Amino acid sequence: MAGLILDKVAVVHFGLGEVASAVAAAGAPLLHGEFLPPAQGDLRLVSALNRLLSPPLGPEIDKANQVALERVLASRPLLVGVATAREAVPGMDEDLFLHAGPPIEWDRMCGPLRGAIIGGLIYEGRARDPEEAARIAASGAMRFEPCHHHQAVGPMAGVVTPSMPVWVLTDKASSRRVFCTLNEGLGKVLRYGAYSPEVLNRLRWMAEELAPALSAALAVKGPIDLRAIMAQALLMGDEGHNRNRAATSLLFRELASPLVKAVRDPEKVARVFDFLNQNDHTFLNLSMPMAKCMLMAAEGTERSTMVLVMARNGTDFGIQVAGLPGRWFVGPAQAVEGVYFPGFGPADANPDIGDSAITETVGLGGFAMAAAPAIVRFVGGTAQDALARTEEMGRITIGRNPDFAIPALGFQGVPTGIDIRKVEELNLLPVINTGIAHKEPGVGQVGAGLTHPPWECFHRALIACEEAFGSSNATEVTCCR
Amino acid sequence: MAGLILDKVAVVHFGLGEVASAVAAAGAPLLHGEFLPPAQGDLRLVSALNRLLSPPLGPEIDKANQVALERVLASRPLLVGVATAREAVPGMDEDLFLHAGPPIEWDRMCGPLRGAIIGGLIYEGRARDPEEAARIAASGAMRFEPCHHHQAVGPMAGVVTPSMPVWVLTDKASSRRVFCTLNEGLGKVLRYGAYSPEVLNRLRWMAEELAPALSAALAVKGPIDLRAIMAQALLMGDEGHNRNRAATSLLFRELASPLVKAVRDPEKVARVFDFLNQNDHTFLNLSMPMAKCMLMAAEGTERSTMVLVMARNGTDFGIQVAGLPGRWFVGPAQAVEGVYFPGFGPADANPDIGDSAITETVGLGGFAMAAAPAIVRFVGGTAQDALARTEEMGRITIGRNPDFAIPALGFQGVPTGIDIRKVEELNLLPVINTGIAHKEPGVGQVGAGLTHPPWECFHRALIACEEAFGSSNATEVTCCR
Repeated sequence: MAGLILDKVAVVHFGLGEVASAVAAAGAPLLHGEFLPPAQGDLRLVSALNRLLSPPLGPEIDKANQVALERVLASRPLLVGVATAREAVPGMDEDLFLHAGPPIEWDRMCGPLRGAIIGGLIYEGRARDPEEAARIAASGAMRFEPCHHHQAVGPMAGVVTPSMPVWVLTDKASSRRVFCTLNEGLGKVLRYGAYSPEVLNRLRWMAEELAPALSAALAVKGPIDLRAIMAQALLMGDEGHNRNRAATSLLFRELASPLVKAVRDPEKVARVFDFLNQNDHTFLNLSMPMAKCMLMAAEGTERSTMVLVMARNGTDFGIQVAGLPGRWFVGPAQAVEGVYFPGFGPADANPDIGDSAITETVGLGGFAMAAAPAIVRFVGGTAQDALARTEEMGRITIGRNPDFAIPALGFQGVPTGIDIRKVEELNLLPVINTGIAHKEPGVGQVGAGLTHPPWECFHRALIACEEAFGSSNATEVTCCR
Repeated sequence: MAGLILDKVAVVHFGLGEVASAVAAAGAPLLHGEFLPPAQGDLRLVSALNRLLSPPLGPEIDKANQVALERVLASRPLLVGVATAREAVPGMDEDLFLHAGPPIEWDRMCGPLRGAIIGGLIYEGRARDPEEAARIAASGAMRFEPCHHHQAVGPMAGVVTPSMPVWVLTDKASSRRVFCTLNEGLGKVLRYGAYSPEVLNRLRWMAEELAPALSAALAVKGPIDLRAIMAQALLMGDEGHNRNRAATSLLFRELASPLVKAVRDPEKVARVFDFLNQNDHTFLNLSMPMAKCMLMAAEGTERSTMVLVMARNGTDFGIQVAGLPGRWFVGPAQAVEGVYFPGFGPADANPDIGDSAITETVGLGGFAMAAAPAIVRFVGGTAQDALARTEEMGRITIGRNPDFAIPALGFQGVPTGIDIRKVEELNLLPVINTGIAHKEPGVGQVGAGLTHPPWECFHRALIACEEAFGSSNATEVTCCR
């Protein structure tokens, strides 16, 4: 043993591969460990990160983030009704369409979002055909604004037009109201940019028969506690984003008896049951506004670096931070790594799209993978990967949500409240479960998989937090914690 | 190193603790390993086991067991209707009540079974009060026979009387029909020996309103593939015995639309929905006959040592073996280790009772614990225990059922087809998830937990298999494989 040390130099190295390869080239024994400095070693970001982590600011932000998380956990979103967007959604008018993700103009919109807007214009009777619709959309006659600017969320393209029915949620703990369209099912649907007559006829049936029936049933039933359903569904293999079969089933059970009491035409009731039974994603359009409702409780928490929104319009990915309400930090929407339906591949895929990443923002979806081992078949990977994914997301979050317990992890709560400081410090991006849309309008879903926000969102948010929260008497830049 | 071996004797010992303790007392270094010889070292059993495992008989039995398992896996139980026991169940007549488990006379029956028979006699109008019912039951005026003698199964007391409605299943792959009562829900119910007016009124409502409604709905719907529902439910946290929330929800979704089409009175339909929605165990009374239907496919497979039935009447535990059709091998029903409802404890508990262990016999329940980590809260243990339990049961089974896949185990099928030879060779009893009944009639459920069959069942079955399958030219007893 002694001889080894005296005779030779052996190197244990963490850091850049170039240094290690020089040691190896010199013939010395080498143990090379992966290491990336915080914030990928970018000096401007390291400086901001240091300021946001170190005293005096760091502990203040820690406290603010605890407050933000407590506000999220105290929220109690209740499903209270169904209404049309024009009646219910604040600021909605006839010339306004909402869409998923951060703000975007028509000429930068991706195929599926354009398709959904074209479909929306025909659905609203503003255009007779796709060509006319595209002309109107490009003319500036319509305004396009994010759902998130109107207390709403929408899956995939997320287009909400004035005549569409929306679920109405209220927070029991406040007077907040949140909205989301009703899920159309799978196959050719507007949210994936399809706008054939079949798609538009389904939307009309949803507005004319489904929505009034659900509205009447909810009037009989009274408010439904969505967190309670979500908590049960996490014990039943859902993660609340790509898998919603359990929550949809439990909601179905709750609504069945009120539906037959409220709607006297049995054929109509049967059509509603058939539609809901054919669509395991019915509850996605409730887990999303539930998540939005919970997160809005933390909006404006001073000096909090907790992520409040993650949303994509198919071109850009935008995040918002609790302590900087209303500001978007944007980067390019990423590709989705996943499993494609037969006949489709990566070349057909649109980049990541939709407001559904609000589920990850509240600790569901990719953050709750451990609850849904069955999902790995559809996004690639193993049950062990699913457990590891949830544990990993625990490293970038502020805490756990004990009400959303995962049995496979000893009933630990889902990791909740992404701290942009931890994302940068650990170089670890949030993981998002999502569907994959075809890049051309009118085609629809082509697969499902996993993706991440772009780094730009977090870099920009970090700098903005430093500028907004950092005081002039902050400590010198020394080192990261 | 060399010195250690030359200077001292060190002992690595497997076997009886007495031998090891003598070594330890002599001061020698000792590594003691647990070891129990096959069949617990009983010479008569070891001899039978050897004959049933070694050539020429062993390989023949292996082949027979593969055939038996294939027959089970090829069965396709369909839910086709609801009928009254007197119309549907073969051999049913007005003086016959069926019960769970192996045959038993009134004077040896446990409290809950007596309670259910008393309730059944009042329900049928044969007695005006419990005292009269007990007199009639003891008088010999009624016959009591196992459900299993009539292609039926019943949870807990398992009492079936002529007027009770039963689910009707047929095997798509044969003309076999199997029957089970409808689940009454939780709380005070006949299957736990309760017979108050509330219990009997509920049974009357079930016969008069629920059963005709379900029957009409199934006529509209057509056959329902129960294996398909069970397969889905295993991806949703059910194990098909103590946890049935997912399967019940999926069945509910299938029946909702047909119900409103078939039954025109919305108040009646709403009462049916409310009843089903309040009872997550509705599907237990379908997973049980589904299991029975699958296992019956292997009945009479020559020289098969596969377990065909495990059933308890609250006094005795009985098993049947595929190659010895109709013969019971019986031992004392065991205590259940588990978690008690507030105010109850082990002193209140009846021994293990019910035909529901048919679910374990087909690879569900305790054998599928890995699919249902949420259940560990109610039977004690951790999610890791649940995974280990399923893996352990894989050691005593003939194969796996690929249609019943467990996501947390990489979509491996549930271990299926208990081989009595493996149970004896490995000294490893099947594990059973079950409810705990109060030992007094009329009280009801007091907890839930885990239990095992008694060793006697397997010892007796092993000897009987040797006597029936062993030929005169069998090899000498030499050793176990």
